[in-house]
Amino acid sequence: MRDKLKALTGSREWELAIVGLIVINAITLGLETSTAATEALGGVLTGFDRFILMVFVVEISLRIVANGFRFFKDPWNLFDFIIVSIALVPTSGPFAVLRALRILRVLRLISVVPSLRRVIGGLVSALPGMGSIVVLMALVFYVFAVMATKLYGEAFPEWFGNLGRSIYTLFQIMTLESWSMGIVRPVMEVFPNSWLFFVPFILCTAFTVLNLFIGIIVSAMQEEHEHTADEDRKAIHTEAEHILTEVRELRAEMAEFRRSQEQGR
Amino acid sequence: MRDKLKALTGSREWELAIVGLIVINAITLGLETSTAATEALGGVLTGFDRFILMVFVVEISLRIVANGFRFFKDPWNLFDFIIVSIALVPTSGPFAVLRALRILRVLRLISVVPSLRRVIGGLVSALPGMGSIVVLMALVFYVFAVMATKLYGEAFPEWFGNLGRSIYTLFQIMTLESWSMGIVRPVMEVFPNSWLFFVPFILCTAFTVLNLFIGIIVSAMQEEHEHTADEDRKAIHTEAEHILTEVRELRAEMAEFRRSQEQGR
Amino acid sequence: MRDKLKALTGSREWELAIVGLIVINAITLGLETSTAATEALGGVLTGFDRFILMVFVVEISLRIVANGFRFFKDPWNLFDFIIVSIALVPTSGPFAVLRALRILRVLRLISVVPSLRRVIGGLVSALPGMGSIVVLMALVFYVFAVMATKLYGEAFPEWFGNLGRSIYTLFQIMTLESWSMGIVRPVMEVFPNSWLFFVPFILCTAFTVLNLFIGIIVSAMQEEHEHTADEDRKAIHTEAEHILTEVRELRAEMAEFRRSQEQGR
Amino acid sequence: MRDKLKALTGSREWELAIVGLIVINAITLGLETSTAATEALGGVLTGFDRFILMVFVVEISLRIVANGFRFFKDPWNLFDFIIVSIALVPTSGPFAVLRALRILRVLRLISVVPSLRRVIGGLVSALPGMGSIVVLMALVFYVFAVMATKLYGEAFPEWFGNLGRSIYTLFQIMTLESWSMGIVRPVMEVFPNSWLFFVPFILCTAFTVLNLFIGIIVSAMQEEHEHTADEDRKAIHTEAEHILTEVRELRAEMAEFRRSQEQGR
Repeated sequence: MRDKLKALTGSREWELAIVGLIVINAITLGLETSTAATEALGGVLTGFDRFILMVFVVEISLRIVANGFRFFKDPWNLFDFIIVSIALVPTSGPFAVLRALRILRVLRLISVVPSLRRVIGGLVSALPGMGSIVVLMALVFYVFAVMATKLYGEAFPEWFGNLGRSIYTLFQIMTLESWSMGIVRPVMEVFPNSWLFFVPFILCTAFTVLNLFIGIIVSAMQEEHEHTADEDRKAIHTEAEHILTEVRELRAEMAEFRRSQEQGR
Repeated sequence: MRDKLKALTGSREWELAIVGLIVINAITLGLETSTAATEALGGVLTGFDRFILMVFVVEISLRIVANGFRFFKDPWNLFDFIIVSIALVPTSGPFAVLRALRILRVLRLISVVPSLRRVIGGLVSALPGMGSIVVLMALVFYVFAVMATKLYGEAFPEWFGNLGRSIYTLFQIMTLESWSMGIVRPVMEVFPNSWLFFVPFILCTAFTVLNLFIGIIVSAMQEEHEHTADEDRKAIHTEAEHILTEVRELRAEMAEFRRSQEQGR
Repeated sequence: MRDKLKALTGSREWELAIVGLIVINAITLGLETSTAATEALGGVLTGFDRFILMVFVVEISLRIVANGFRFFKDPWNLFDFIIVSIALVPTSGPFAVLRALRILRVLRLISVVPSLRRVIGGLVSALPGMGSIVVLMALVFYVFAVMATKLYGEAFPEWFGNLGRSIYTLFQIMTLESWSMGIVRPVMEVFPNSWLFFVPFILCTAFTVLNLFIGIIVSAMQEEHEHTADEDRKAIHTEAEHILTEVRELRAEMAEFRRSQEQGR
Repeated sequence: MRDKLKALTGSREWELAIVGLIVINAITLGLETSTAATEALGGVLTGFDRFILMVFVVEISLRIVANGFRFFKDPWNLFDFIIVSIALVPTSGPFAVLRALRILRVLRLISVVPSLRRVIGGLVSALPGMGSIVVLMALVFYVFAVMATKLYGEAFPEWFGNLGRSIYTLFQIMTLESWSMGIVRPVMEVFPNSWLFFVPFILCTAFTVLNLFIGIIVSAMQEEHEHTADEDRKAIHTEAEHILTEVRELRAEMAEFRRSQEQGR
């Protein structure tokens, strides 16, 4: 019975049905943002949404039953499980904001469509190699944020009032959005030397981002390159094998000839 | 007669004449934007424009006659056909805006000049490989737009009032234009935690764009690299062939020698 | 005498002296921007500037005498000639603005220092391959500028009043500076559908710039790669040569043996 | 005793203890930015900070004693030494700003954690190859800054009043922040042709940055590529060695056979 369930939930028809439901659900959730549509179809949309949620709950339950505990070992299954669980939290009171998270269900498309799953997989697999640079970036942000809070926190509480605000403002400066006209020129009117703080920050983060970027490109190329190099070596090996076979056969013939000569004498 | 037409419309002189007309048309359409020039040469410019349009209509008709139904199979021909057709739509009443589209005719230069056509061909050929990432991007935009509309639509109808506005605003945020000072800081004054929505959005889209970018670079390199690898393998094969020839001749000589020895005994 | 001049103007000491003069001139021209320095050293700075200019004029005259007409065939010499000539134009009346161009003389450092010359040479040599994309970019700008002038010129004369202003504004939009909050949102208040014009423009130019970029990277890599591939092939050839020598010697020995055997019989 | 000290300060336990102290110090320095935390724990935080500083001073003294003068030859040691020294400068009076620099101590994490040290080492090792481009960039900035000060200094003292302000404003323009709406459009209202100055500046710097960027990518790839090419050549050499061994053995057998035949005759 477990095997049957497994075959069912892994079948192509089942997948297509789920993709279809996700797309329809995406549309109904999109329609809910329009007041005109909600007024006209309010009840239908909510009903539909509940129905699809129920289908998803059943589907995931079946897959859990089918695969047992191993279900939670696949990160994509975990992803599906969390996304559907969010929708089950009561959305009244302090959790009202969670209602807006229902649209995250559409992201199940990623876990269901193999080509999307592969793209995300590729991105995620590039991350570990980038760990050191991310830690470095965090360090740079922390150090500059503490300094900014101490130096400019009192004069510009809006931007550098506490550690969180400083980090946000520094993130904005890193994206170069209004960094000069919006932030640094006003700061420089109070602290004329503050460019000595902000310009190095921009150069540091630009340099770090550049390196993150280059790291990802080089590792993507490397993988592709490694592949060609492997094929190259295989080609070389095949050619060398041909020659070796020929030479070995020659040697064997030679040896045989020699034996026949020595016997003949 | 068809073959003659085909030879004519495919000849170099014909092409040069068309390029010349397109360039002249580009200039006259440019002059129409200047009121001084329109006042002085108004009639001439309009007359010229009509004349060139007529020539284009005749040219495309000839090419359709020459190539028959196959004409529409080449996407560049379709491109020419649509661009010239736009100019034939009456530009009065609701279609007045189409008058401005006449300048699109200048884009026929792309379909006529081979080196430009090759550049566009290169760009377009890189697209299919990027399909998954574009779908992913669309998904990310849709999910975030629905959430933004639900969360901030009421408080900021100008920016997030409906799905379309949300998508436009999110596109602006993705380009990093005024994202913080213009949009997120005002939103954060009402919803202090909204950075939890916008900063992940920026990181997500930056990461996706980065991947689109790397995908295109890697595939461009791969193509070029594949080419060198092919030449490498050819070079290896040639060298191996040389050696093999030599060894095989040696074997043949050996065999002959052996035969002669065995006969001689 | 010509040869002596040539040896002199091409000698290392001469070059160092010129580099020294350029650096000193750079400093004096920099000091002229400070009113305090001009008041204190005004006469000295102007005198020095005239003296250095005179030296440069003499130097270039000597190089013209030494090399004759061939002097003008080297683009770097032409560059030097033009930059020094600018300084000789009377800087009164309408040409007063040319006084500010005297600082361009500092760019002679590029033509004198070989490593800088090589960097610029590298950049310039990458340009021809980019010709088609630059033409494409020009085409895209022209077409969109004519359309923008026709569509929005009347309502926003400041931004799209004529072809020149439209091109400038579109350039600003291409760099993404204030494109939405500054330009497109105001335009959309009058023409609600104008995002249909601007968003495709941004995507088009971003895509074209991306391709320009990738073209330059790929051609830089290709050159470097071509170089390694050449060395690879040389290595393969050397190895194959070793084997061939060995096989050929074996063949020669074999032939000799065979001869001796046949004679011996 | 020196060797014992060296073994101690180089041991893994010592390193872990230092990393731990740095992390704790990072937290206490972060807490100092919050007034609530300072009021509650003020004395504890300051005491802790002094204690950690003392530990660092002792640690570096021990390492200096252990390694002698060679200590200062390793740039990372110098880095540690300077960062700890900053904290010893009295932070009263004109040096009060140095108090904010205490957080720099957290950067010691980079010199202590090997993977971070490697990332920075990689970045720094890429710099020398970029020397020419950085010099070129400096030249471009200097030339444009002198011109901007002369041309627009009087009318816009805020932006171009002296060489320093011009360089800052040009840096802002290079990052494309508010370059048009914020700076160039206002300047163009006074000097309508000033786009002839600013647009080439943007193109020049964009092109130079692009080259810096490509230089770093290509050199990163080259290194990786050189590595594969080396392995390729090794593979080729191994294959060729196999063949050569075989051929040489054949030759030896042949020679032996020949000798035996000639003796036998």
